Amino acid sequence: MRMVDLIEKKRDGLALTTDEIQYIISGFTNGSIPDYQMSALSMAIYFQGMTEQERADLTMAMVNSGDQIDLSGIEGIKVDKHSTGGVGDTTTLVLGPLVAAVGVPVAKMSGRGLGHTGGTIDKLESVAGFHAEIESEQFIELVNKNKLAVIGQSGNLTPADKKLYALRDVTATVNSIAMIASSIMSKKIAAGADAIVLDVKTGAGAFMKTLADSEDLARAMVDIGNNVGRNTMAVISDMSQPLGFAIGNALEVKEAIDTLKGEGPEDLTELSLTLGSHMVYLAKKADTLKEARGLLENAIKDGSALHAFKVFLEAQGGDASVVDEPAKLPQAQYSFELEAKAEGYVSEIVADEIGTAAMLLGAGRATKDSVIDLSVGLVLRKKIGDQVKKGESLVTIHSHFENVAEVKEKLYANIKISIDKVEKPTLVYKEITK
Amino acid sequence: MRMVDLIEKKRDGLALTTDEIQYIISGFTNGSIPDYQMSALSMAIYFQGMTEQERADLTMAMVNSGDQIDLSGIEGIKVDKHSTGGVGDTTTLVLGPLVAAVGVPVAKMSGRGLGHTGGTIDKLESVAGFHAEIESEQFIELVNKNKLAVIGQSGNLTPADKKLYALRDVTATVNSIAMIASSIMSKKIAAGADAIVLDVKTGAGAFMKTLADSEDLARAMVDIGNNVGRNTMAVISDMSQPLGFAIGNALEVKEAIDTLKGEGPEDLTELSLTLGSHMVYLAKKADTLKEARGLLENAIKDGSALHAFKVFLEAQGGDASVVDEPAKLPQAQYSFELEAKAEGYVSEIVADEIGTAAMLLGAGRATKDSVIDLSVGLVLRKKIGDQVKKGESLVTIHSHFENVAEVKEKLYANIKISIDKVEKPTLVYKEITK
Repeated sequence: MRMVDLIEKKRDGLALTTDEIQYIISGFTNGSIPDYQMSALSMAIYFQGMTEQERADLTMAMVNSGDQIDLSGIEGIKVDKHSTGGVGDTTTLVLGPLVAAVGVPVAKMSGRGLGHTGGTIDKLESVAGFHAEIESEQFIELVNKNKLAVIGQSGNLTPADKKLYALRDVTATVNSIAMIASSIMSKKIAAGADAIVLDVKTGAGAFMKTLADSEDLARAMVDIGNNVGRNTMAVISDMSQPLGFAIGNALEVKEAIDTLKGEGPEDLTELSLTLGSHMVYLAKKADTLKEARGLLENAIKDGSALHAFKVFLEAQGGDASVVDEPAKLPQAQYSFELEAKAEGYVSEIVADEIGTAAMLLGAGRATKDSVIDLSVGLVLRKKIGDQVKKGESLVTIHSHFENVAEVKEKLYANIKISIDKVEKPTLVYKEITK
Repeated sequence: MRMVDLIEKKRDGLALTTDEIQYIISGFTNGSIPDYQMSALSMAIYFQGMTEQERADLTMAMVNSGDQIDLSGIEGIKVDKHSTGGVGDTTTLVLGPLVAAVGVPVAKMSGRGLGHTGGTIDKLESVAGFHAEIESEQFIELVNKNKLAVIGQSGNLTPADKKLYALRDVTATVNSIAMIASSIMSKKIAAGADAIVLDVKTGAGAFMKTLADSEDLARAMVDIGNNVGRNTMAVISDMSQPLGFAIGNALEVKEAIDTLKGEGPEDLTELSLTLGSHMVYLAKKADTLKEARGLLENAIKDGSALHAFKVFLEAQGGDASVVDEPAKLPQAQYSFELEAKAEGYVSEIVADEIGTAAMLLGAGRATKDSVIDLSVGLVLRKKIGDQVKKGESLVTIHSHFENVAEVKEKLYANIKISIDKVEKPTLVYKEITK
């Protein structure tokens, strides 16, 4: 087999075989296939796409390029949730305790990463004492015992994907549905999930800006998962504005607690129940989605979801009293209100720009070495469709510095108020199943 | 400027500016732009093509990446001829003396190269004493004196093109009209030509197999030349069968001598007159193509073309007596006839396979280190459309070894005889001018 012939084959619109894809990915990983051939192939894939079979083969070749997490010691069907990323997305913090409370095992491997806020582990570290650096034996033991544990990323998972992504990033070949879908799915599968619920975001604050692109990506991932024996479904949800109110680490933990109490933002609550229902259903803890939703609503009402959160925090060294006393979470030195300059209806809250404003406050990492301030961030007081009076607060800014002029300017520029009444955006556009 | 943005621009079908192309080619040449970005760009160009302006810019950026030959010391308009390559193409050997005889200065820089036979210099070295390793001062002096000289390639011409071609070769991005045309034209322009006549071959033995592809390539090169101030035209000529009869080094020199005497193969003579007329016309040695052709026909008739060849050979150390005594050229030890197995009409002579047969005899180089046997090769006795009787010779095989079974087998497999009468193929399909 010669790589140049395989590039030509793809360039001419033909499908690569399982063996050919395996040859490419293992050669690229071990360095026998040079970057310049892999980038030419990536561009050919950008133009010619990949068949359903090729996507599944690429995914599994990347899974097989490194370690795989063995979760076989955990009883039950391990369902993982993955979001394609947005601003203020607190669903992971809510969903873990929520589905654990109804018996679904959640073995979450998480990272820190770059972004508008920290990753799930950063957020959880807002709780004094909490740590995710646990041994895998303890991790599995905790999931079996409490149905929920979080561990930091370890092992050499999908090195082919890491290397390929770095190359795509500098060769203008990131935007390929086939390669994005295979990349995401390879990581989930290597992390040991039996079943996968995908939350594909759509809109201005999402990677996929249009509903059509989001649907294509969701369909591609659902097909890959099911083709490689992982029960997979996707929800397409709105990211035209941030989800919930809070954008910041401790602020989102507080919001998650509120939501587990039944007092959270409407959209965050609804999306958590939607995604959670699918997780419960795929874990075979309910026969129908309706039954699953009933179980979750009940776990909020009877306090078992909140209790699961406390048990989880304590098991990993955290001070669970924050759940009842959220003031114990890190607090920013200053807070300011962003006052509406006119009355009307909120018509636009440009999600990614709001995220950037949170980053300006220090809530996220721009580079691997950035230090996150867990206390700072934004809390939206209004969302799209809400009526607002002049002088009323649009956003509360939590800051560790006094001069927030730049942040305010960015917020004003990206929160639009219209005179005419505005509809609330749709929250869940579509559910895509096998 | 960031290369990744330029790749994205081309990927999305937009045209790159002159500055952007200059940035890319100089960065690629000096190594600041890595191969993996250049190969991704090449694949994007493969799919999206390049505008006329981009092709001209790419050509000049490659010209400017290295040395350029200064032919300003030569009087008159220097017209270069370039062929896209075929089998048994003896036109260069014929055209040099032919147009020199009517006063067109021919300053030929030539290489050795890989192929079915050697390059122009290899062929000329069949003449005892001939050498092309001359100083550039002497080269220019000889062209001014005799209107014809040949020099071996020297200097660092179009390093960007060399580096890019090597990369395209291993990334399945050779077959891009924009890049092929820019590559060829950059080399001609760097070699100092004022005007260029292109012989674009078409058919089974050519790089471009179809007339449409050949026309596209010809049009692209003619546009580039004229856009960068070089009077350029192209002839599209047949390469469904080898040109002329001889395929081999000394054999082609003999054929060139025959042609300059007016006794050469019909197709080689006709194509030489066609290309030569355009050279004479572009060099402004005639006001019309018809007048130019008249001058050339006369140069054959009155012996001045043959005389120019003798003068040229002598000036570069060659034994010009071979022109009158071709038996002095290197002779192969053995010769064999390939006898027709049936009677009928020759319907097919697969040019590239016939070329491969000549290579099996040792006429060409498979690698840079191969040693050429100047004496060996093939002489076709029949061409497409010719009637043939059973047992009549189709080809004379000149070999330095006795067992030519493999060569014969290849020849039989690639020379087809039909019972029905066959038309001779068209020789010149089209002439493409500004």
